Amino acid sequence: MCGVFGIYGVPEAAKLAYLGLYALQHRGQESAGIASSDMGKVYSRVAMGLVADIFSPQDLDSLKGSSALGHTRYSTTGSSTIKNAQPIVVDYSHGTMAMAHNGNLTNARQVRDFLEAHGSIFSSTTDTEVLIHLIATSEGNKLIDCIVDALSQIKGAYSLVILTKKKLIGAVDPNNIRPLSLGKKGNGWVLASETCAFDIIDAEYVRPLEPGEIVVIDKDGLKSYKPFKAQKPAKCIFEYVYFSRPDSYIWGNSVQKARKALGAQLAKEFPVKADYVVPVPDSSNSAATGYSGESKIPYEMGIIRNHYIGRTFIEPSQTIRDFGAKIKYNPVKEILKDKKLVLIDDSIVRGTTGKKLVKMLRTVGAKEVHWRISSPPITNSCFYGVDTPTRKELIAAGNSVEKIREFMGVETLGYLSPEGMVKAVGGKMDEYCMACFDGKYPVDSANIQKCISEEKNEEKC
Amino acid sequence: MCGVFGIYGVPEAAKLAYLGLYALQHRGQESAGIASSDMGKVYSRVAMGLVADIFSPQDLDSLKGSSALGHTRYSTTGSSTIKNAQPIVVDYSHGTMAMAHNGNLTNARQVRDFLEAHGSIFSSTTDTEVLIHLIATSEGNKLIDCIVDALSQIKGAYSLVILTKKKLIGAVDPNNIRPLSLGKKGNGWVLASETCAFDIIDAEYVRPLEPGEIVVIDKDGLKSYKPFKAQKPAKCIFEYVYFSRPDSYIWGNSVQKARKALGAQLAKEFPVKADYVVPVPDSSNSAATGYSGESKIPYEMGIIRNHYIGRTFIEPSQTIRDFGAKIKYNPVKEILKDKKLVLIDDSIVRGTTGKKLVKMLRTVGAKEVHWRISSPPITNSCFYGVDTPTRKELIAAGNSVEKIREFMGVETLGYLSPEGMVKAVGGKMDEYCMACFDGKYPVDSANIQKCISEEKNEEKC
Amino acid sequence: MCGVFGIYGVPEAAKLAYLGLYALQHRGQESAGIASSDMGKVYSRVAMGLVADIFSPQDLDSLKGSSALGHTRYSTTGSSTIKNAQPIVVDYSHGTMAMAHNGNLTNARQVRDFLEAHGSIFSSTTDTEVLIHLIATSEGNKLIDCIVDALSQIKGAYSLVILTKKKLIGAVDPNNIRPLSLGKKGNGWVLASETCAFDIIDAEYVRPLEPGEIVVIDKDGLKSYKPFKAQKPAKCIFEYVYFSRPDSYIWGNSVQKARKALGAQLAKEFPVKADYVVPVPDSSNSAATGYSGESKIPYEMGIIRNHYIGRTFIEPSQTIRDFGAKIKYNPVKEILKDKKLVLIDDSIVRGTTGKKLVKMLRTVGAKEVHWRISSPPITNSCFYGVDTPTRKELIAAGNSVEKIREFMGVETLGYLSPEGMVKAVGGKMDEYCMACFDGKYPVDSANIQKCISEEKNEEKC
Amino acid sequence: MCGVFGIYGVPEAAKLAYLGLYALQHRGQESAGIASSDMGKVYSRVAMGLVADIFSPQDLDSLKGSSALGHTRYSTTGSSTIKNAQPIVVDYSHGTMAMAHNGNLTNARQVRDFLEAHGSIFSSTTDTEVLIHLIATSEGNKLIDCIVDALSQIKGAYSLVILTKKKLIGAVDPNNIRPLSLGKKGNGWVLASETCAFDIIDAEYVRPLEPGEIVVIDKDGLKSYKPFKAQKPAKCIFEYVYFSRPDSYIWGNSVQKARKALGAQLAKEFPVKADYVVPVPDSSNSAATGYSGESKIPYEMGIIRNHYIGRTFIEPSQTIRDFGAKIKYNPVKEILKDKKLVLIDDSIVRGTTGKKLVKMLRTVGAKEVHWRISSPPITNSCFYGVDTPTRKELIAAGNSVEKIREFMGVETLGYLSPEGMVKAVGGKMDEYCMACFDGKYPVDSANIQKCISEEKNEEKC
Repeated sequence: MCGVFGIYGVPEAAKLAYLGLYALQHRGQESAGIASSDMGKVYSRVAMGLVADIFSPQDLDSLKGSSALGHTRYSTTGSSTIKNAQPIVVDYSHGTMAMAHNGNLTNARQVRDFLEAHGSIFSSTTDTEVLIHLIATSEGNKLIDCIVDALSQIKGAYSLVILTKKKLIGAVDPNNIRPLSLGKKGNGWVLASETCAFDIIDAEYVRPLEPGEIVVIDKDGLKSYKPFKAQKPAKCIFEYVYFSRPDSYIWGNSVQKARKALGAQLAKEFPVKADYVVPVPDSSNSAATGYSGESKIPYEMGIIRNHYIGRTFIEPSQTIRDFGAKIKYNPVKEILKDKKLVLIDDSIVRGTTGKKLVKMLRTVGAKEVHWRISSPPITNSCFYGVDTPTRKELIAAGNSVEKIREFMGVETLGYLSPEGMVKAVGGKMDEYCMACFDGKYPVDSANIQKCISEEKNEEKC
Repeated sequence: MCGVFGIYGVPEAAKLAYLGLYALQHRGQESAGIASSDMGKVYSRVAMGLVADIFSPQDLDSLKGSSALGHTRYSTTGSSTIKNAQPIVVDYSHGTMAMAHNGNLTNARQVRDFLEAHGSIFSSTTDTEVLIHLIATSEGNKLIDCIVDALSQIKGAYSLVILTKKKLIGAVDPNNIRPLSLGKKGNGWVLASETCAFDIIDAEYVRPLEPGEIVVIDKDGLKSYKPFKAQKPAKCIFEYVYFSRPDSYIWGNSVQKARKALGAQLAKEFPVKADYVVPVPDSSNSAATGYSGESKIPYEMGIIRNHYIGRTFIEPSQTIRDFGAKIKYNPVKEILKDKKLVLIDDSIVRGTTGKKLVKMLRTVGAKEVHWRISSPPITNSCFYGVDTPTRKELIAAGNSVEKIREFMGVETLGYLSPEGMVKAVGGKMDEYCMACFDGKYPVDSANIQKCISEEKNEEKC
Repeated sequence: MCGVFGIYGVPEAAKLAYLGLYALQHRGQESAGIASSDMGKVYSRVAMGLVADIFSPQDLDSLKGSSALGHTRYSTTGSSTIKNAQPIVVDYSHGTMAMAHNGNLTNARQVRDFLEAHGSIFSSTTDTEVLIHLIATSEGNKLIDCIVDALSQIKGAYSLVILTKKKLIGAVDPNNIRPLSLGKKGNGWVLASETCAFDIIDAEYVRPLEPGEIVVIDKDGLKSYKPFKAQKPAKCIFEYVYFSRPDSYIWGNSVQKARKALGAQLAKEFPVKADYVVPVPDSSNSAATGYSGESKIPYEMGIIRNHYIGRTFIEPSQTIRDFGAKIKYNPVKEILKDKKLVLIDDSIVRGTTGKKLVKMLRTVGAKEVHWRISSPPITNSCFYGVDTPTRKELIAAGNSVEKIREFMGVETLGYLSPEGMVKAVGGKMDEYCMACFDGKYPVDSANIQKCISEEKNEEKC
Repeated sequence: MCGVFGIYGVPEAAKLAYLGLYALQHRGQESAGIASSDMGKVYSRVAMGLVADIFSPQDLDSLKGSSALGHTRYSTTGSSTIKNAQPIVVDYSHGTMAMAHNGNLTNARQVRDFLEAHGSIFSSTTDTEVLIHLIATSEGNKLIDCIVDALSQIKGAYSLVILTKKKLIGAVDPNNIRPLSLGKKGNGWVLASETCAFDIIDAEYVRPLEPGEIVVIDKDGLKSYKPFKAQKPAKCIFEYVYFSRPDSYIWGNSVQKARKALGAQLAKEFPVKADYVVPVPDSSNSAATGYSGESKIPYEMGIIRNHYIGRTFIEPSQTIRDFGAKIKYNPVKEILKDKKLVLIDDSIVRGTTGKKLVKMLRTVGAKEVHWRISSPPITNSCFYGVDTPTRKELIAAGNSVEKIREFMGVETLGYLSPEGMVKAVGGKMDEYCMACFDGKYPVDSANIQKCISEEKNEEKC
């Protein structure tokens, strides 16, 4: 997952991009970068690490101009290198172009092979570079034509921001798998993965981009294009469940409100008698308040999370019980001892950390642990930008709920139903991508199935 | 404020110290250090920054031995330098000694002047170095005698851990102003400011040190000394209100339990009709659940906190409303709009961030804000180790509650009563230091009053 | 200027590349990089700084395999950025390719425009990237065909080393403007800009590459190709005068021997009565011994050079006489006072440092300074890889020798004649490029003249 | 060995100290530090590494004031740590004091034991800290009294610079073992180990300090004190032979002149028929010109030295012949092949690098190698500040010249005689310390002999 940000027509654009990225930091902590334009030249700086660590005041001063673009990248296995950090900045026939991308292109391998066969060279292993090549090799006259041409050749999920000397462009894929929102800052415009990036810079939220929409912003204002045939939306429901910040709006809806509703629905589907509702902090706090409100069981911060996790954590070679989980979580014995708990979590991926956490709760004397998950079992890998592991690593891919319950060592285990999840979030089943829960890949499905069968999914096609 | 940690008789002692410090990171983020002993030599490494950032695996490997000591230091104005980082490690007549100190010596200036007049040199501006000199210049034969001799000459607050080649020593001042707890790890012993440092290394909590107690741990086991005349305890009640981690026990009591009781008591003293109880995260989360439980007003995470704050944060020169607060907090519009809120905070110091936060709540449409503080007004500086500003900067030192309410722009403002605070925490009024609330300095009061009147309090005497 | 190195078929190839680059460090100190291949995968690391500073043992261990390539880059104005550091490593249709380049392509701008117009994107501002694109877009079947195809489209100076998973390729331009030598290390092969890189790794010098020669080294051994029509060689004579290390052989000849002969010839052309021959260290030491030997005037280290020059040197704001020169040079008063000196220098570019140096000699009491330059006046910019400034900055471009003598404040000034220079180095006038001295550009002359007239020479065409 | 520098009464004092240290960098590359005073406060910065690398412009700006002191430290085994870096800056009864020290105190261990027994604590393992304690514990009223008191208790070699808020003090030991010179810069004063530090800042050389002299510089000007009984001087003759820069004056004499005379004397004592005189660069260049001048054998730069040696040099695990020497030196085959050489070196310590170098000369075809050393055989360790190894590591301590010749594999080997050395340098035998050559320790001899017999000489007593 990644966070993207763009701004046009506002003084100190790079500093605002810096703040915007800071607000989007939860979407990726591996690397960050900013490109800016002063209408004559494009400047950029990209580095590994956290936004607040890698930009000095001098760095920001050197990123001149009133338009800028930024990117934060999530750490994914095997390719954590500066070469893959974004934005990618290149010179091509129409000048200089910087690109920041959130999502994953499912036919990147095929397009890349095609491009290489026609003479393109690649400096990174990212699918984003494929898109840059498609724009550069397009024979369109105007930038918008080249972009439309390029996007028409790719499949998958993308929320893109592109910066040139004179323009800022935002684009989302026809299925709108990843969010991208439009805002206003004075006379200028802002684009961001989530609206929390608008709040920090006092920008006003205007609206989410629509499926397949491309907005081009320049001195003549904003123009919206919808060049592609209308597609059924396939919004990633996991953005509501886990990824986005609760104070953000995505696709026009409040994440916190959705998350509370998920918790309340969970209480309806899996009620239980207990002393406390305890969230796995911080991602499940909102769902836990929802469960608590519906069930009238008191909400309790029974697990404390340590936020000081650094780049490298050093494990002692001797055995410490449940070590990995201990670095992040500590249960509050005084509260939990002899108590029946409803433990709220957003999801279970491999199940290893969760199992350790449950053991920690037992160690401090929890009498009963009723685990409630505010989403259905994850049974499939994501090919649209979320870094889920391969199928065989997903505990729910090969095990029944009862088996998982037993493995976890909890009294009861309840996963929210798909129907309940959609009901809570709002809208209809068929406007969301729920592939990780149901294996129905809404975009480029045949190709993805081929990838899975060929076990090529390490690189996500 | 600082965090201290010591361990004796456990393999990989430095790695466990590292984990212990990591758990105590909230007590100080300016610098950290570890010293270790392999019974023949003392090793050490001290650096500026976070525990998880400054120790590499090689660093920890080079800190050999089965006993170790660690320190995390809080950033205080004007003296943020490696020279003041701890532990202090020196050679003296009895060999090598490392010391880590939490607290503040009130007569350090006088003792330092005396020592300098008698030929001592000082490499740092910390009061801890004064203590080292007193031990080194003591004419006692045994280490314990030198320590007792040294401690008998100083006044103020201290929770100390000392490491020599062969021994680990813990000591707390006769009034027990700062906490220090004793734990057991296998056949070895552990000392820590808070018990959360025991949990992370699977050590067992034994008991808090008692007022004026000194424990000496070596190959013959643990010996406890109480060389000083019994004093009335004066435990810092602010450790319960704000400083300690909720999952810790201090002085034998659960911080989380105390904090919830503070919130419940606050609800009794200052009830109000409202839609939600909203904490200022994360320090007020527990008190907010207490208020919610007592008042039956639902608890709501209405303010989201960004945890990615780095070393240097770069402010845009243009005006962003309430900028400082925005870096840390963002209110959730969807939840707060048109709502009556009980805003729970642990304390108000200068009032500047709080005022900005309230403005942010208004901006997203909060209808009423009823501010509830889970401690009394802070009217005096701390001279025992908490980094409170000078009196004139304390908003409550010169203003009535009504004035503060008006300044903050809230409908109502309620501070917990001193009696209510003690009732919630447990115990009696006279076993706590509440000097920051009532100006009654339990230790070295005449000297402190002189400091205040001479406006020397920048260096805290 | 840059240094290139390649090695094939030798264990620990990257470590040998590291040593080779270390020996070539004088050819460029801005950045350095190594790529290696273990026959299955290509590894690389590139960074700003000195070879001995930027590679850790772990870095070298991660550069696996028995073939490798390295590059050191000279700092040139305006483009000192990691993006321009080499080797460039890309994926293209035939796999992975790394390239290191010494030289300058004179038609890079035109080719780049053409490539961009046909859809290529550029990540750097180097001409080397142009060459990579030409190889990648070539429709040749075999790598050698693609390389020949690419090289046939470019003009200018290049000594290239290319590494793929299975092959190491070396190539020099048809005029052989820059040197590249072939060596043998056990059963493996080595390529380097200068033979001093062979000495440090105990490799044996075989021969220089010939004009237009391409060598392809793989498991079947070395194959030599000469696909281009024979051209008159145009070897850069400045490599002998200044750039190469005296212990190297280039184009089969000893640099030290050539440099001594330049000094001796200078003594013949411009004899003078004096007490000492004093070199400007270290580049003129060899020429000075030659002058001394011919003239029988004693050689004297009358100027001491400080070698500890770091990345950023901080100038005091107050006036120190001849500050810039003082950082590097200090005259030895005891030796120079009241003496008549023959000052030997390899060349005068802008004349500013030299003027300061002469003033320093006067300050310590030199009675007469007879400046002798072991090359003719530099009157023209280099477009083949040496970082000379633009014509208008060259002191000899607009001034007579007498004017320069007057400006420098020396008793006499003698520049070696072109004929004398060639005689000393050996060979004939027309086998060298002497464009910086005579303005006769042997390659792509019309284009260079156009560049100069359009004053585009900042980017060297 | 170390370099010290002090300046008083000159604007931007820290920047001038920075330049001065840069000129003294050859005296120590392990660490460097500067302290400055603006008459009200003392500022300091100390770090590991080269002067030009460790001070940023901001660092220098923060070192305010018109007086400053600097130190560069040589890397010595076992104690390369920031704790031992200088200047040492402490607070004591009279305020703040910074100290930089070149030399070695022979009774440091005894004084340290005494001080520790009386309650002093030590933060470093340097003898310099002992001196600070002695000053701080002195009961003198004025600073000069305390310094005299302290110096009267120590033995050994010291050239000291001390900075307080208001004063700059320079001091040399009564035997004047290490040099310290006085200079003038405008109305201010300068002190430095060597005069090359005056040249770089345009200061004027006044005179060397005299044996046992202390100079105190403050707003009232310079006062000179000679509180100690006159001692026979014992100037380190090795400063002339090797350590100082040739462009410096020490004890009033030119190093370059001395070094040339050493070479000339060597030619008289050990003439030989040969083709070239070849120095081991750069330390023997001057002696080689002296030998060449006397013998009329041409001087030749037959060995090239690489100056880019970085912090960590990575050795390939496979065998490269004479690897260690290759990193630094490369012989010029073209010059040396089939030639008879006089190889000039300043000294032979262990003999390992020299042996490798000779092998390298043979490999390129040198017909005869006649090794000439411009000092006598080193047979004893230095206890006054030069980092010579223990006796048993010194090749000349246990082997005859003929044995060494054989081990080195040279045709002839000639060491300069002690008499010839003194004659060349000037003055009388008994005004120099030549302990490394003759074992006669002029200061604290009994204690040193005890150290040697107890094999405690690792720490140099």
